[in-house]
Amino acid sequence: MPRTLGVCYYPEHWPQSQWATDAAQMKATGLTWVRIGEFAWSLMEPTPGTYDWDWLDRAVQTLGEAGLKVVMGTPTATPPRWLVDRMPDMLAVDASGRPRAFGSRRHYDFSHMGYRVECSRIARAMGERYGRNPHVAAWQIDNEYDCHDTTLSYSDAARTGFRNWLAQKYQSPEALNLAWGNVFWSMQYESFDQIDVPNLTVTEPNPAHVMDFRRYSSDQVVAFNRVQVDALRPLTDAPLIHNYMGRTLTFDHYKVGEDLDIASWDSYPIGFLSDRVEGTAKEKQTYLRQGHPDNQAFHHDLYRAVGKGRLWVMEQQPGPVNWAPYNPAPLPGMARLWAWEAFAHGAEAVCYFRWRQAPFAQEQMHAGLLRPDSTPAPALAEAAQVAGEIDDMPALDATTAPVALIFDYESAWAWDTQPQGADFEMFRLAFAAYRALRRAGLSVDILPPDTSDLSPYGLVLAPGLMTLSDSLRAALATYEGIALIGPRSDLKNRDMAIPLPMGPSLPDTDVTVVLTESLPPSDKIKLQGGGRFRHWFEHLEGTAPVHLSTKGGQPAIMGGDNLRYLAGWPDDDTFDGIIGGLCDAASIPTLQLPEGLRVRDTATTRFLFNYGPKPVTWNGTTIPAAGVHWEALP
Amino acid sequence: MPRTLGVCYYPEHWPQSQWATDAAQMKATGLTWVRIGEFAWSLMEPTPGTYDWDWLDRAVQTLGEAGLKVVMGTPTATPPRWLVDRMPDMLAVDASGRPRAFGSRRHYDFSHMGYRVECSRIARAMGERYGRNPHVAAWQIDNEYDCHDTTLSYSDAARTGFRNWLAQKYQSPEALNLAWGNVFWSMQYESFDQIDVPNLTVTEPNPAHVMDFRRYSSDQVVAFNRVQVDALRPLTDAPLIHNYMGRTLTFDHYKVGEDLDIASWDSYPIGFLSDRVEGTAKEKQTYLRQGHPDNQAFHHDLYRAVGKGRLWVMEQQPGPVNWAPYNPAPLPGMARLWAWEAFAHGAEAVCYFRWRQAPFAQEQMHAGLLRPDSTPAPALAEAAQVAGEIDDMPALDATTAPVALIFDYESAWAWDTQPQGADFEMFRLAFAAYRALRRAGLSVDILPPDTSDLSPYGLVLAPGLMTLSDSLRAALATYEGIALIGPRSDLKNRDMAIPLPMGPSLPDTDVTVVLTESLPPSDKIKLQGGGRFRHWFEHLEGTAPVHLSTKGGQPAIMGGDNLRYLAGWPDDDTFDGIIGGLCDAASIPTLQLPEGLRVRDTATTRFLFNYGPKPVTWNGTTIPAAGVHWEALP
Amino acid sequence: MPRTLGVCYYPEHWPQSQWATDAAQMKATGLTWVRIGEFAWSLMEPTPGTYDWDWLDRAVQTLGEAGLKVVMGTPTATPPRWLVDRMPDMLAVDASGRPRAFGSRRHYDFSHMGYRVECSRIARAMGERYGRNPHVAAWQIDNEYDCHDTTLSYSDAARTGFRNWLAQKYQSPEALNLAWGNVFWSMQYESFDQIDVPNLTVTEPNPAHVMDFRRYSSDQVVAFNRVQVDALRPLTDAPLIHNYMGRTLTFDHYKVGEDLDIASWDSYPIGFLSDRVEGTAKEKQTYLRQGHPDNQAFHHDLYRAVGKGRLWVMEQQPGPVNWAPYNPAPLPGMARLWAWEAFAHGAEAVCYFRWRQAPFAQEQMHAGLLRPDSTPAPALAEAAQVAGEIDDMPALDATTAPVALIFDYESAWAWDTQPQGADFEMFRLAFAAYRALRRAGLSVDILPPDTSDLSPYGLVLAPGLMTLSDSLRAALATYEGIALIGPRSDLKNRDMAIPLPMGPSLPDTDVTVVLTESLPPSDKIKLQGGGRFRHWFEHLEGTAPVHLSTKGGQPAIMGGDNLRYLAGWPDDDTFDGIIGGLCDAASIPTLQLPEGLRVRDTATTRFLFNYGPKPVTWNGTTIPAAGVHWEALP
Repeated sequence: MPRTLGVCYYPEHWPQSQWATDAAQMKATGLTWVRIGEFAWSLMEPTPGTYDWDWLDRAVQTLGEAGLKVVMGTPTATPPRWLVDRMPDMLAVDASGRPRAFGSRRHYDFSHMGYRVECSRIARAMGERYGRNPHVAAWQIDNEYDCHDTTLSYSDAARTGFRNWLAQKYQSPEALNLAWGNVFWSMQYESFDQIDVPNLTVTEPNPAHVMDFRRYSSDQVVAFNRVQVDALRPLTDAPLIHNYMGRTLTFDHYKVGEDLDIASWDSYPIGFLSDRVEGTAKEKQTYLRQGHPDNQAFHHDLYRAVGKGRLWVMEQQPGPVNWAPYNPAPLPGMARLWAWEAFAHGAEAVCYFRWRQAPFAQEQMHAGLLRPDSTPAPALAEAAQVAGEIDDMPALDATTAPVALIFDYESAWAWDTQPQGADFEMFRLAFAAYRALRRAGLSVDILPPDTSDLSPYGLVLAPGLMTLSDSLRAALATYEGIALIGPRSDLKNRDMAIPLPMGPSLPDTDVTVVLTESLPPSDKIKLQGGGRFRHWFEHLEGTAPVHLSTKGGQPAIMGGDNLRYLAGWPDDDTFDGIIGGLCDAASIPTLQLPEGLRVRDTATTRFLFNYGPKPVTWNGTTIPAAGVHWEALP
Repeated sequence: MPRTLGVCYYPEHWPQSQWATDAAQMKATGLTWVRIGEFAWSLMEPTPGTYDWDWLDRAVQTLGEAGLKVVMGTPTATPPRWLVDRMPDMLAVDASGRPRAFGSRRHYDFSHMGYRVECSRIARAMGERYGRNPHVAAWQIDNEYDCHDTTLSYSDAARTGFRNWLAQKYQSPEALNLAWGNVFWSMQYESFDQIDVPNLTVTEPNPAHVMDFRRYSSDQVVAFNRVQVDALRPLTDAPLIHNYMGRTLTFDHYKVGEDLDIASWDSYPIGFLSDRVEGTAKEKQTYLRQGHPDNQAFHHDLYRAVGKGRLWVMEQQPGPVNWAPYNPAPLPGMARLWAWEAFAHGAEAVCYFRWRQAPFAQEQMHAGLLRPDSTPAPALAEAAQVAGEIDDMPALDATTAPVALIFDYESAWAWDTQPQGADFEMFRLAFAAYRALRRAGLSVDILPPDTSDLSPYGLVLAPGLMTLSDSLRAALATYEGIALIGPRSDLKNRDMAIPLPMGPSLPDTDVTVVLTESLPPSDKIKLQGGGRFRHWFEHLEGTAPVHLSTKGGQPAIMGGDNLRYLAGWPDDDTFDGIIGGLCDAASIPTLQLPEGLRVRDTATTRFLFNYGPKPVTWNGTTIPAAGVHWEALP
Repeated sequence: MPRTLGVCYYPEHWPQSQWATDAAQMKATGLTWVRIGEFAWSLMEPTPGTYDWDWLDRAVQTLGEAGLKVVMGTPTATPPRWLVDRMPDMLAVDASGRPRAFGSRRHYDFSHMGYRVECSRIARAMGERYGRNPHVAAWQIDNEYDCHDTTLSYSDAARTGFRNWLAQKYQSPEALNLAWGNVFWSMQYESFDQIDVPNLTVTEPNPAHVMDFRRYSSDQVVAFNRVQVDALRPLTDAPLIHNYMGRTLTFDHYKVGEDLDIASWDSYPIGFLSDRVEGTAKEKQTYLRQGHPDNQAFHHDLYRAVGKGRLWVMEQQPGPVNWAPYNPAPLPGMARLWAWEAFAHGAEAVCYFRWRQAPFAQEQMHAGLLRPDSTPAPALAEAAQVAGEIDDMPALDATTAPVALIFDYESAWAWDTQPQGADFEMFRLAFAAYRALRRAGLSVDILPPDTSDLSPYGLVLAPGLMTLSDSLRAALATYEGIALIGPRSDLKNRDMAIPLPMGPSLPDTDVTVVLTESLPPSDKIKLQGGGRFRHWFEHLEGTAPVHLSTKGGQPAIMGGDNLRYLAGWPDDDTFDGIIGGLCDAASIPTLQLPEGLRVRDTATTRFLFNYGPKPVTWNGTTIPAAGVHWEALP
């Protein structure tokens, strides 16, 4: 499959006289795709029911005639003021009970049925107009679900929807009371109409209550998205896409992805580094102008799974952004590196955000490929360089990685709801495991929790999985590689309760977690041989062999040759040792990489990316800062 | 009086078939008491007015027949959903004006008269059913007043009640205006109906306004408790108890205690260590799995005073809890140490919380004596060990300690209201004094602020007392030991104003605080001889002798042989020196103790508790980590 | 003009029998002025429409007969309870949507038209009573606008007023949509009645929306003040004054100042040090009892500009205050130093706050010249010393400083609205520039942004100016000194958009900021010759000469001999070097001063102030800690 570049463009922000010039320059830069339309509802439908397609027709035609392909976005992330005036209760409500007002974007409640009807209507109208337009080659539905914490709403609409959802799920209040354990504090309900959304309770609500609300809220994102899928499917053959965000866990992306053709995400490596990625102060300074060396790779691998193999980067940071606590400029070369890294991880297209920096409104300090005065910004030349390099590249055929990581959204909600330790976060644990795999030079596949076939992989990690699915448990029962389960895996049932017998329930492996400790930053559990657990430590019992022990003589890893349980959260050095040992046992070759260098293998090509601020030499090859190197695999 | 053990049990959480087995195992462990019932309103009264006592009858009978004594809890901390539906305004309102919703516990407003009627009704119904039951040997009223910050409410009910309370107190708005100094910012009221609860003001409300609201709110807890006392007293001869919490200062426990027979408290040493007890990072790590070595002792001594000599621990941590920022497991032996420490401080009973870890709802990560799967958790064996040791113990007769500390709830409200320094907290100051006494090996009695007889004590400390009571002032006038008053003592009158003449007003002792400085953490006031004040320093004037001076020549301690005023907040080393000097002067012997070792003397027995993580040797005796040693006093 | 001292006094707080004694003691201390009345509405008008002037008549007469001059304050910062009961919607509303309740002060909304009518009425009534009273020699209107963050309100009154203000400004929704760039996220309005105050939006509102709301809110302060000016002007010839606060930026003080005769401010050097002034931990400890050595000077210079040359200090800290996080006592001598520093910067009068410490209500821990028991507090003797010294002083004629700093309130709002870096604050940047000038021994004039004549100054700094005004741009075009513009100057137009062509637009100077980086604390941009930029760095292009470069070869200062642009935020050392170089080039002599020593030159006298905690020797003169020295300029 060929790799392509693109850009996000807002014709409505610029005089029509400029469109053809812009289109020609995009084409000359080597771009293929132009995403448009996703915030333009007020121009498509300036007053209720009256559409104005003229300007959009001309924009599509201008871009198409220049040889570009259009990604058409539905504008449902920015309902116009008149629509909010017509249904003021379409606004979401925050956890403090305050409506989230008009005046920016994403001012809608996923639970609001009236707004869904409006979204279906505008999507259908767009599909009727552009579904068969030869220049419109893909569709984006809405924009960045959950951005600005918009998945969870505590509105009347959410309350009503939640009650219905619970009634469907449990059929009777008695069944719900039993499942949630409402006997605990006299919390029984006699009717579903007595159940509230779980905010503003005196102390923490029942975690089972919260978990069902998290599931309900995720389901509303799925349903909201499906409304537009259903409207567009009959009207177009172009692929349907949503642009997800980094480190967003409030809805089950796999489920949204089932209804779509491609998963795309919006990659802002530097914006994320300062406060959305773990790291020491030294790492944050080292990678200040590059982004964390594993953050982009993780999301590429995750969204490749969400997209069932099909991945795009819909928005790629080209320069300083406007929304992080601090916004430095990328190191020269990074706009190229990020694109190649995406391709190496399977992306079919990488679109820079945005073509020209807007001189007005909220994002006026967000760089583009052009400056506000239309002169080239630094990333333009890097985009052109990538476009030129694409032609000379060998095929980047997808391949199966040697190792896999199970990643589950529901588990993220579970440990949000009941962290037990103040710094326990599911993403952080999963990312710690992923980073260890990457430091060992391994390419990684991320798998959903209902995976039923692990046979392609020599090593599988499953950290922090709330509950092993039946299919995964079955796969583990016959697995011939090494699976490392835990910590905090399979210790709850689906009702967010401790199962009896207590977990984990690993096939043919007698291990039980009998006591759990969360550890403050000052504390650690020392292991035999020099490692240590931080944050989390589980006391294990059972007859399974002990592979690793604490200095105090407690089991740290227990299990058989294939299925093992990890009793704590290893720090980075310790994780490196554990991964190294498992790879040796599984005959998976690992690499010794200098700091900042990362490797990704496709079927036939090995890519090296230098995320560091200085050149590195490895295996005889010197790669400059922000440099990319590729070579054929033997 | 014999010492006994017990446990908290929730028969409603388990199948009835398990009850007899549980009861037999409790008995076999050596337990005497079982507390039940305190969250089970929805089972006692599933629908309004229809009681279901059958299950509770059976539970009491099963436990009683096994030889256990029941502590019966009234369930008023968890009103059922149907009750909230009937009187939605029974919910408290937080300082931001938001109702505190159903869905956890303690969802009621102490000021709500309708809810008080309901509480009286359920208490009376329980009393009628179980007041003369031979197995019910004690009662607990409600559960953990103020838990989850529930004393203060800014509801309509609170506003109405507060206005009436003010009208009763002041009789006329003019009197209130004068007492509060409302002339200050044109804040005069013409009618009590103009007075609001003191939240959401533009800047700080009048501290006199806040103080009266704090007094009013405390009085509502007293009144709320008394409603149930009044309902139960005619129906039972068993003692009435409430289970207070650690470091809870929002209501006057002495006043609640006046209506009850025994004061009990819920002791969670490790849960408190991480964020509810002062300490350096090093101390927090040293005592991570033991709890702060003075925190339990302080509360035992405090609640012994609240209980007018009768003390229980109603809930004793047995393993990791679920609610602290970090939740490690206790060091082996601590579940035994904590119980013996409670007995040494006068506790008649220590009940572990809880029998079996619940697999569902909010506290499913809270350890019990049994694991969720009914196998023994580590604390069970320790409880059994204590039970076995009790029989062999000499009598633990109460005695009067050589030193006393005055502790006053109203002062805590005063300095909350007007801290003057960001880190000034009354408890912290009192606890600093207490810790210094304990480091000197002293047993301590805590006394209420209206104490009228100090003669049993050789040394009395009164730090941070807003106003000396008339009785205390009279006691000081004839006191022949040494009393160290201050800092920040007797500097306000009961109207929260500076008295004229300015304080303190110590009998026959000419000392006046003429200027007050609060100090940032970077600053200190150096004393002659090497000590220093932190946080707080008062400039003293007067003709009384100066016992200690600052390096700058200002008085640090002034007064006569018996009555002295301390002008600042000594750091720990300095406090040790001051206490040492005073004890020498008062001929009170002190001890040199290794770090982590604590001493408590009863009438005839000296107890040593090693809170440290390593063995210590003292006076020829080696005590292991978490170890307890006792010996007859000469 | 003679320099005078005064004091703030509240006769309504004390028995009338004490007034004459107080007045005599004030006079004996050497005081000239007594400010009264500003919180006494409830006494002036105890019930609606019924005035009680008797007490105030007597107070004025008593003070006047003692030889004192009265500053009469209008009491509109403390509307009585009965007034709030009559118009409950006069309360402001906070950003969370909660009314800001009665119970302290400043409980009014600047937008509320009904309250303006009431303020006009009480001001007129006071003017009629005291406008020609021979003892009333000045007026203060209201008290500390914006104190407790009261400029911005999100009330219904503000919403209505804002809509009208926008309608006046833009005339049509289309014009507003265009100016704000509302096309960006479909934010267009069809009617002004659709526009809300910009709080509680899902993510950040349009910065142009926020900026207009900030302008609107500032205009309401101006209008509110003008209502009282209009009421008083016909009734008195005494000067009208408002007492501004330190570091208050929410309204345009220059505009308020246009309607008044004198600018005064309330100077609390130690209260501000702990959390309202930048500084390292070491500096904060060094100046703990003196205040930051440049903070008072900055505000004197700023408010001298706001007062069009006429400056007072209406409230001068005399001892510990009650409202800072920590409240230590001033170093002996500071109450004298602060007064002389104010005089040296042009103050006509310095009034200490307050005469006697109040024993009741919110400020009872705030020191006065007297203690609550009427004995002298430490500052009384220092005030008397200043009063004695005034007579012997040479004339302190105003003069023009050699250097000027442009300071603009609108720019503060702009960078609040769009900081781009988490630690970017306009005041901080301007104060960094000012401090560098002071460390070089320079006296400074602060100028408003519409300054049209720079010719008196050899050096002008304009850091952080959102937009250069036409008049300033014209002045720069012919300026013969050196003007250093930037960083972040002239990069926005008045619509809060990036101008095209991009800025800055400096006359005859080809420099453009093409890319902006905000830097986290860990990062710095090294400069040739050893300096560095922190926080902020702009990439410059253009043909103007480069005066200074980064180590990476990018321009750091560009421009011609007269007009230069500074591309980043220099740290203190670097700023010292830049200022030194510019002064050399402009032939402005600078001084080498020891740490903590500051200099201020009047026309004929040089003042030295030692803010340090130890004596310093400079040019052969030794000045004690907290010492003041003056000498004739050659």
